[in-house]
Amino acid sequence: MTAVSDVHVREVGPRDGLQAEEPIEVAARVELIERLVDAGVRDVEAVSFVSPRAVPSMAGAADVMAAVRRRPGVVYTALVPNLKGAELALEAGMDALSVTVSASPTYNEKNVHMSVDESVAAVGEICGLVAVTVPVDAVVSCSFGSPYEGEIAPGAVHDLGRRLLDTGATSLTYADTTGMATPRRIDDLLDHTGLAVGLHLHETRGTALVNAYAALERGVRRFDTSVGGLGGSPFVAGAAGNLATEDLVHLLDDVGFTTGIDLDRLLAVSARVAELVGHPVPSRVAAAGPRTRLAPV
Amino acid sequence: MTAVSDVHVREVGPRDGLQAEEPIEVAARVELIERLVDAGVRDVEAVSFVSPRAVPSMAGAADVMAAVRRRPGVVYTALVPNLKGAELALEAGMDALSVTVSASPTYNEKNVHMSVDESVAAVGEICGLVAVTVPVDAVVSCSFGSPYEGEIAPGAVHDLGRRLLDTGATSLTYADTTGMATPRRIDDLLDHTGLAVGLHLHETRGTALVNAYAALERGVRRFDTSVGGLGGSPFVAGAAGNLATEDLVHLLDDVGFTTGIDLDRLLAVSARVAELVGHPVPSRVAAAGPRTRLAPV
Repeated sequence: MTAVSDVHVREVGPRDGLQAEEPIEVAARVELIERLVDAGVRDVEAVSFVSPRAVPSMAGAADVMAAVRRRPGVVYTALVPNLKGAELALEAGMDALSVTVSASPTYNEKNVHMSVDESVAAVGEICGLVAVTVPVDAVVSCSFGSPYEGEIAPGAVHDLGRRLLDTGATSLTYADTTGMATPRRIDDLLDHTGLAVGLHLHETRGTALVNAYAALERGVRRFDTSVGGLGGSPFVAGAAGNLATEDLVHLLDDVGFTTGIDLDRLLAVSARVAELVGHPVPSRVAAAGPRTRLAPV
Repeated sequence: MTAVSDVHVREVGPRDGLQAEEPIEVAARVELIERLVDAGVRDVEAVSFVSPRAVPSMAGAADVMAAVRRRPGVVYTALVPNLKGAELALEAGMDALSVTVSASPTYNEKNVHMSVDESVAAVGEICGLVAVTVPVDAVVSCSFGSPYEGEIAPGAVHDLGRRLLDTGATSLTYADTTGMATPRRIDDLLDHTGLAVGLHLHETRGTALVNAYAALERGVRRFDTSVGGLGGSPFVAGAAGNLATEDLVHLLDDVGFTTGIDLDRLLAVSARVAELVGHPVPSRVAAAGPRTRLAPV
């Protein structure tokens, strides 16, 4: 793959990464978001406007966004589960929203206690509210299978994506929530969806990077990643974290893609994240350092 | 990649995997080798004939091989560091030998206290002894760079490989000992060496699988892997384990390559390995199970 083009990285660590951790202070979340942007991140899923009872570590989203120094040209995204969340997100001045619906009916039911149809309708309500002002990215979880239903046909996943676009979503991201994607499955889904999609990949089976690589070869240029590789689904046993931002940037830098992100500065943020959450992050690039790091003399 | 061909997997867990662990009993090492073969492994680096003082966990190689029930058609390989080791290996009836020389002079010096030239000469002695009877695979460590010298030019790595063939080695394996390979580096080296080589990949930076995939796309069909992902270099700080056999087989099965290895049986062996070494193995497929594993109802 000879590649000199730009890859759009949406950093989801402050939201998807931290939501599975013990709550950390608003000031620390603000620091994390600002340092990620300082490292070159241009799109950050910073918060979610969800019930603080359901997801305690995401409480205080409005406080976080009120405190963040916003940098022009950077997209600050919020995940919202419903109309109420979307209203709060717009009040907080978010640049973009993300919403999720699962391609797995059972996962959707367990995750948000709604049928897929109900979730699509909720997306429609959100888009009706906000479509004119900010873009809404619809994330289709379990796009590569589910531990409940097993394989989910790529055609069915694509159909759900189309319904979400029809209902007002402005872009689609396909998520490998349970780590069932493989290069072949990536190929199969892209055969249906085309390449103007984002991918959200998980390390459950250690395949996030190889799946990203296969998608890059096909021409996908948009990925969700999480600093340090934090994250993972609380609803699936054994689900490891998201594709680590530093692992993807490390690969992209070497192949020749640009992201705007400075790997050394990002690794410093990753080290700080480990302090904030109180345990090492899963990323192996974070542990070993970049390949250009030489041994001490 | 549409692929329906055979991939040769050399299982190095009983040697490269266990050498970094506390010594385990001969009977347990025998059990491990036999169970790997039962799972379909057709080439196993079973032992090394090295100084028991230098590598205590590899002591008793002759005892291991005397006890193993040998299956016809399976290649039982031993790593040997010198002529003495090669003699012992032939006495033990090994089917093949592996030898290592580093493309990094500093690494070679630290690892075996010899210059690269001295190591090449030692390989020549070994091959002079055994070339007629058994094949000798020469493993070139640090083929994708070294934390001491940094980048190592692919042309120089290839030149070392040619010297090893000239001195009697019958095949070459290029090892990413310090986890510095990337798909681009794989491409660069294969441009020099051609595709009739083996690759020995490490997870130091979480890139073993993506590197294997890139090599498969180029046409490489021979890989070293270690059950559970055990292993790693004791001489490089932060070096994580080998590419896990189950992680590669999981990928190959899905893409359509055959290996002869049954993933479910291999995962049972991997679980046993974790018991034997007394800690979880690094493989994420081992932790999460195959992608086809459904959630309990």
